[in-house]
Amino acid sequence: MRRGLLMSRIEKDFLGEMEIDDEAYYGVQSKRAAQNFMVTGISVSPELIHALGIVKKAAATVNIKLGYLNKKKGEAIVQAAEEIREGKFNEEVILDSIQGGAGTSINMNINEIIANRALEILGYDKGDYAHVHPNTDVNMAQSTNDVIPTAVRIATIKKIDGLIEAAKLLKKRLAEKEEEFDDILKLGRTQLQDAVPIRLGQEFGAYRKTVDRFLNRIKEIRNDLTEINLGATAVGTGLNADPKYIELAIKELRKNTGLKLESTDNLVDGTQNTDVFVEISGRLKTFASSLSKIANDLRLLDSGPQAGLNEINLPAVQPGSSIMPGKVNPVIPEMVNQASFQVLGNDQTITLASEAGQLELNVMMPVMLFNVLQSINILTNVNRIFAEKCIKDITVNRQRCNEFVERSVGIVTALNPHIGYTKACEVAKRSLREDKSIKEIILEEEIMSEEKLSQILNPIEMTEPGIAGEQLLPKEA
Amino acid sequence: MRRGLLMSRIEKDFLGEMEIDDEAYYGVQSKRAAQNFMVTGISVSPELIHALGIVKKAAATVNIKLGYLNKKKGEAIVQAAEEIREGKFNEEVILDSIQGGAGTSINMNINEIIANRALEILGYDKGDYAHVHPNTDVNMAQSTNDVIPTAVRIATIKKIDGLIEAAKLLKKRLAEKEEEFDDILKLGRTQLQDAVPIRLGQEFGAYRKTVDRFLNRIKEIRNDLTEINLGATAVGTGLNADPKYIELAIKELRKNTGLKLESTDNLVDGTQNTDVFVEISGRLKTFASSLSKIANDLRLLDSGPQAGLNEINLPAVQPGSSIMPGKVNPVIPEMVNQASFQVLGNDQTITLASEAGQLELNVMMPVMLFNVLQSINILTNVNRIFAEKCIKDITVNRQRCNEFVERSVGIVTALNPHIGYTKACEVAKRSLREDKSIKEIILEEEIMSEEKLSQILNPIEMTEPGIAGEQLLPKEA
Amino acid sequence: MRRGLLMSRIEKDFLGEMEIDDEAYYGVQSKRAAQNFMVTGISVSPELIHALGIVKKAAATVNIKLGYLNKKKGEAIVQAAEEIREGKFNEEVILDSIQGGAGTSINMNINEIIANRALEILGYDKGDYAHVHPNTDVNMAQSTNDVIPTAVRIATIKKIDGLIEAAKLLKKRLAEKEEEFDDILKLGRTQLQDAVPIRLGQEFGAYRKTVDRFLNRIKEIRNDLTEINLGATAVGTGLNADPKYIELAIKELRKNTGLKLESTDNLVDGTQNTDVFVEISGRLKTFASSLSKIANDLRLLDSGPQAGLNEINLPAVQPGSSIMPGKVNPVIPEMVNQASFQVLGNDQTITLASEAGQLELNVMMPVMLFNVLQSINILTNVNRIFAEKCIKDITVNRQRCNEFVERSVGIVTALNPHIGYTKACEVAKRSLREDKSIKEIILEEEIMSEEKLSQILNPIEMTEPGIAGEQLLPKEA
Amino acid sequence: MRRGLLMSRIEKDFLGEMEIDDEAYYGVQSKRAAQNFMVTGISVSPELIHALGIVKKAAATVNIKLGYLNKKKGEAIVQAAEEIREGKFNEEVILDSIQGGAGTSINMNINEIIANRALEILGYDKGDYAHVHPNTDVNMAQSTNDVIPTAVRIATIKKIDGLIEAAKLLKKRLAEKEEEFDDILKLGRTQLQDAVPIRLGQEFGAYRKTVDRFLNRIKEIRNDLTEINLGATAVGTGLNADPKYIELAIKELRKNTGLKLESTDNLVDGTQNTDVFVEISGRLKTFASSLSKIANDLRLLDSGPQAGLNEINLPAVQPGSSIMPGKVNPVIPEMVNQASFQVLGNDQTITLASEAGQLELNVMMPVMLFNVLQSINILTNVNRIFAEKCIKDITVNRQRCNEFVERSVGIVTALNPHIGYTKACEVAKRSLREDKSIKEIILEEEIMSEEKLSQILNPIEMTEPGIAGEQLLPKEA
Repeated sequence: MRRGLLMSRIEKDFLGEMEIDDEAYYGVQSKRAAQNFMVTGISVSPELIHALGIVKKAAATVNIKLGYLNKKKGEAIVQAAEEIREGKFNEEVILDSIQGGAGTSINMNINEIIANRALEILGYDKGDYAHVHPNTDVNMAQSTNDVIPTAVRIATIKKIDGLIEAAKLLKKRLAEKEEEFDDILKLGRTQLQDAVPIRLGQEFGAYRKTVDRFLNRIKEIRNDLTEINLGATAVGTGLNADPKYIELAIKELRKNTGLKLESTDNLVDGTQNTDVFVEISGRLKTFASSLSKIANDLRLLDSGPQAGLNEINLPAVQPGSSIMPGKVNPVIPEMVNQASFQVLGNDQTITLASEAGQLELNVMMPVMLFNVLQSINILTNVNRIFAEKCIKDITVNRQRCNEFVERSVGIVTALNPHIGYTKACEVAKRSLREDKSIKEIILEEEIMSEEKLSQILNPIEMTEPGIAGEQLLPKEA
Repeated sequence: MRRGLLMSRIEKDFLGEMEIDDEAYYGVQSKRAAQNFMVTGISVSPELIHALGIVKKAAATVNIKLGYLNKKKGEAIVQAAEEIREGKFNEEVILDSIQGGAGTSINMNINEIIANRALEILGYDKGDYAHVHPNTDVNMAQSTNDVIPTAVRIATIKKIDGLIEAAKLLKKRLAEKEEEFDDILKLGRTQLQDAVPIRLGQEFGAYRKTVDRFLNRIKEIRNDLTEINLGATAVGTGLNADPKYIELAIKELRKNTGLKLESTDNLVDGTQNTDVFVEISGRLKTFASSLSKIANDLRLLDSGPQAGLNEINLPAVQPGSSIMPGKVNPVIPEMVNQASFQVLGNDQTITLASEAGQLELNVMMPVMLFNVLQSINILTNVNRIFAEKCIKDITVNRQRCNEFVERSVGIVTALNPHIGYTKACEVAKRSLREDKSIKEIILEEEIMSEEKLSQILNPIEMTEPGIAGEQLLPKEA
Repeated sequence: MRRGLLMSRIEKDFLGEMEIDDEAYYGVQSKRAAQNFMVTGISVSPELIHALGIVKKAAATVNIKLGYLNKKKGEAIVQAAEEIREGKFNEEVILDSIQGGAGTSINMNINEIIANRALEILGYDKGDYAHVHPNTDVNMAQSTNDVIPTAVRIATIKKIDGLIEAAKLLKKRLAEKEEEFDDILKLGRTQLQDAVPIRLGQEFGAYRKTVDRFLNRIKEIRNDLTEINLGATAVGTGLNADPKYIELAIKELRKNTGLKLESTDNLVDGTQNTDVFVEISGRLKTFASSLSKIANDLRLLDSGPQAGLNEINLPAVQPGSSIMPGKVNPVIPEMVNQASFQVLGNDQTITLASEAGQLELNVMMPVMLFNVLQSINILTNVNRIFAEKCIKDITVNRQRCNEFVERSVGIVTALNPHIGYTKACEVAKRSLREDKSIKEIILEEEIMSEEKLSQILNPIEMTEPGIAGEQLLPKEA
Repeated sequence: MRRGLLMSRIEKDFLGEMEIDDEAYYGVQSKRAAQNFMVTGISVSPELIHALGIVKKAAATVNIKLGYLNKKKGEAIVQAAEEIREGKFNEEVILDSIQGGAGTSINMNINEIIANRALEILGYDKGDYAHVHPNTDVNMAQSTNDVIPTAVRIATIKKIDGLIEAAKLLKKRLAEKEEEFDDILKLGRTQLQDAVPIRLGQEFGAYRKTVDRFLNRIKEIRNDLTEINLGATAVGTGLNADPKYIELAIKELRKNTGLKLESTDNLVDGTQNTDVFVEISGRLKTFASSLSKIANDLRLLDSGPQAGLNEINLPAVQPGSSIMPGKVNPVIPEMVNQASFQVLGNDQTITLASEAGQLELNVMMPVMLFNVLQSINILTNVNRIFAEKCIKDITVNRQRCNEFVERSVGIVTALNPHIGYTKACEVAKRSLREDKSIKEIILEEEIMSEEKLSQILNPIEMTEPGIAGEQLLPKEA
């Protein structure tokens, strides 16, 4: 290693020399990559950086144990890797989220930081890689192609666990409303047209149920993530990875992460295939589309207040308009919609990236990872905000809900078993045309007695299975 | 019912009268819908028609049993429904796959066919609905909004079962090749660049594994489909459905389909939410993107024959060109790619349709269903064709594979633990620049003895985990 | 050619022999392809078949003229090609829409039909290709890779012309409503919340305007389709295509189609790149998403009738429910939504297919074409149905619209310039809280005189640019 | 305004009071929104902030001119807005890219910064809105619903102009290679199979041409962006906007931006419809998919070096592997692929967001804008990097290219006109089977003389239209 200008050092790789700021822990390969990929302006996710620290630490620990790595050097590497995990070197990761290569640049960025920090710990100059080498020592028994898939899985599991917590909170808030609104009778709507009575609590129960299903589905796929390919090295064959190393390194990872990680039973597959991320994203997409549906419903039920449905009131969280005084908008559900659209778009990027894998590797990993982690992140925030800033404080306009049921024609449906569909149609049509209630017309036309009619036309009973006035039905034989 | 022109009858609904061809079993509502929705020119899927026959039969059977339906009339309905199931009336379903409404038109088309067929059985004229009514009788205790989701689930399960069989066949063929090619040494490639040795069987093993994962995932979600909402009627509250009817009808369905169907524990949710179809499609999408990756790999490995990789030979299934004599193209994998793209596009349609549900119903069901069934259908065909017309008869050019390994620079990787990454880079660079083998250079530079070198540079050993020449490594301490 | 079993002939290609039904005009290559690709069950689009007839006829005509093709044989080919164009042989095209190869199978299917029909015309047996050969004669100077892109462009232009007509009809119907509803005052809504007054005609004017933009955009891209690569042959270099042939064949095509076709200035590009189809689909997608928005608006404005907005009435085109008597649903807009989702999904398939082109050819042409033509077809039908079965007969509930304006708080916005936003907020809040009109509160609080107030609070004036009561404003200096 | 805790002030809106850091220029509404929307962690685009400065300045300037705004106050607002434009207050915009509302939060954030900065200029305390009010004064004659669409268009045009420059650079580099490689003969490939000769320059010419088309298409749609809806205010009716204000404000904008902005002829449409962004994104998507195809081609042609095609050499920009010494990967094209996938995914988000507009407004504007600007940004960077770090320095392996042509069977195509397709097939088949050249076989079988053959089999002539050895053809009659 030579000195360059004041305050800088010269580093070298097989493409040549480069001047590096002497303060920097990153090295020549990081700097090349930083210059090559100024694409989005969005940095690599910190969760991935931290997970790489975990992986590097495990590898070095085992390499010491097996005698491949000199103890003193190895311990400096272990310490440096631990500091990566703690987030101390986030700023030294100077790469864009979208990079060519399947993660070589981020792997080398971490390798270089660790090497330089280890050199520092050992009292050497940064860049003096003869003593601690980013590839030979830090990356020992590793390849980008096993380190990155492993770290990505660890990072993803941790993010998913956060999402699960947030979704549980949303589920809890929805369940609370399901109970609170259980006795609110309102008119159901199908195709935006008046249908038959339902209870507001039932609507929230259906929302709650979709969150439930998501929780099951995401936990299912989370399990697939615990199969890792550490030790697969370059193409999944494990070249340069001692089988004992593989066993011990995963044990170490299990210990340090608390996750039930296991070696995949097919390392070649684990190195080249990324369908688990498409699958995760698919489940996020399903959930996002359900959340968007819920958000749409809430915005609709809250519409008005004068010229809309106005059955419920979403909590006001900010003034709604720069020009219209007093206007309050359903901004939280609107945010939910938008965030959902983002997750749906990200899913496409992820799918395309996964489909583009070739032979022993999927080089599109960076963009896939960027989008997967962003989607999880967005949905985690969305669930929390939706739960706490919206669902929790929804109130109902009970009277408005009642009025709609009362003037509704839909309740005529309960008369089908008694008077037949064709007659019921006539009644419905007259009701709308003459703006008279169903009851009025039935009585006017002397179709049945008032007593019988009121046994049948009981809206609250219509909200559970059963034939209204069943006992009054003439049995066919 | 009045007679219209010669050979036609007049039917009437609450919108007015319409002339219907007297031969026709469908009725006025079917005809209106057929005229309203000439969108794609593609008919409703026969599987859905047959499943509707099953549902209608179960409903009528139970309605007779509970005394709601006159036995004679009911039995005629049962017989007609059975004929629907058998496919006898496919031609009488005159609707486009894309229809407004959540399936009302297809439900009414079936109701009308059954009513008219029952009338015929009972000796009445078609259209004489006073004796058997499409709504009051055939649709008794039913709504489009529970009948369609139920029938769709039955149809989808059956289609998925076919897909599972086809995917198993593909898996079998891949596993056969995994075994057959287990000893074929070849060069692995990452990012399309020469990497380190691998065995062709390992590549096929990775392909086989992706099919495996799909099988697990699709079986998982298939289970969710067995939860049906029959008896939910219009909005999921079960209005007009006797709880005994719900219980018995599902029992009947179980018996007639052999499927473990159960009533969902949340009928409101089961009526409005369609996320299960998004989830199915998501899993199909994941699989399709994996199949497309495999197809791409095979096309690449088969490329040439003179100016390509030419490591394997795909079976010739047809001449490849109208102008280039003797050209054979990888048309089966190309078909796999295209079919996969279709499945990916369909997934978007399905997701959009599901997101667009509102309140008590998702009216976009027809387009969702059209795409889900098409995707399953396509993938079923694709798996079968790929297995039998391509994978099964792939052969390998063993010598070609060997040559690539021999002239490869990538094997230098095995020297990392012995000479360090930096030195190995120099060797690799010289090898490429001077067109000499790694071995020649190592010996020329007297880096290690020939004996030691040949212990390390053993390509076949490089294809399993381990450090080549590990016993030769000086242990660091 | 040998005879096979009774009623069949034996045909041969370089892969071997195959028995062909003697009635069949297609030949061995068609049959192989039909057996290889049973994917979707949906046949090749007739428009493409007919366009191939046009191209084949032009090629043969010019090959005769230049002396490359014997006149008698050539004229038989010309006649057969003309019959293809007329649709006489649609049934002989036995291929699935999704095929491996960039169209070789459909090209050969047409070549074989023409050869056999020409043989028949000339008095030879079908299959006796020594006299008229599908490749040497019918495909003379052609390759799939120029014939298909050319025919696809011709077919697409014709389909687009139909779509343009349909979109113009929709535009006309929207413009009629724009005028008819010009004086209907109603409340505008932003974010589904009550905003400020607008006129119903203005809403329809905005819808009309989106159709306008689509018309401009589709015409723009239609022009790009007129650049064809006929004569490019296999890879765009024009091998085996006499430059005179290229010039004359395009002249012939222009004459026979009436389209302003021209040879692209870069045949290599024209052979391999398919971005024009992505671009067409992109514009269809934009339009579909606009149509879906319009459909959503109409469904919302028509919602109710009792428990919804009910500002407009969509025409009833069919009964809406199998269970709810008298229910009418907005099925036409619902169909528009669903069809739009299909177009959006197709767009993804098309984009994926185009991205997957490699080097000199895009082999994914069949799936691309299938989806492009389907999307155009769907949108053509949608525009026509939407125009004639929905927009044309929309009516308005004038009184309902008025009521919403009258009880609205949004009109307080017009007071901003007079009393400031902060004061206006207070008034709005009191109005909602106390359920009093804006006017009442202003007068009660003696903020301004009734006379002044009524000059300002004139809803109809609020629907055009201007400051209500501007002349009353104190000028700031 | 009251004082809160030391170093903070209390601000108030109609939802209540909030404590604001006294240093802050943003106010209560900004803070609420910042707390409501912590979704992506990615801030609002600076380009939008600056464009809002431009719009606010124009509005205030005209409001002074027309006497609606006191000159002294107005000039302070103008100065503050100018500082926004200069980027001085980027840090005071504290909002996430995804926000509920159609941009009200960002509009109010800007209004509050300007108000507080103007107060400061005038010597008042921040928050003392009685003297300069964010809504009444800064937002005078404006609504979020015209200000945001206008600012977004200005920002987008500027970004597009940057993209156009970058795409021109890419086109230039491709054109240079088109020329440089014009005489490099190589084998064309269709479907990854050996086809017929082509020149490398022709391949780059086809790439160049796709950039050309993009440039035309993006310029076309850029023009649509110049139609702005400033003055449309809340729902497009122009309430509270003096027609003179509209005219003058746009004039002012034209002057300050140098762009040919014009008032749209349909303000209602301009306020609610966002199809122009779907259309822009559609064109970006088309281009991205073309770039991805080019990147794929280059990676393929560069594959190897020993076990791949290795026809060209992409410049080495960084070491390729952490484990494989000396490996160099095509990281720039790989980045192009990934960035393209991002643009394709973003397109879906944008389309969904646009489709979700309702009635007078599209509230999904923030997510749409976030993705549109990101896509343009990414593609701008991608074009520049692709041009300068990859295309510019591509070199060719001329000998390798030659070898492929020489051993190719594809040249047999040129014999079709002379010996017919069937005979040519036989020759091709024998050539491959016996590993003999086409020439050898033709001579061996004495099909034609060596002299004649060499006139026909001239590869370089095969790369331009024409029938090889046309003069030797017996004319059919």
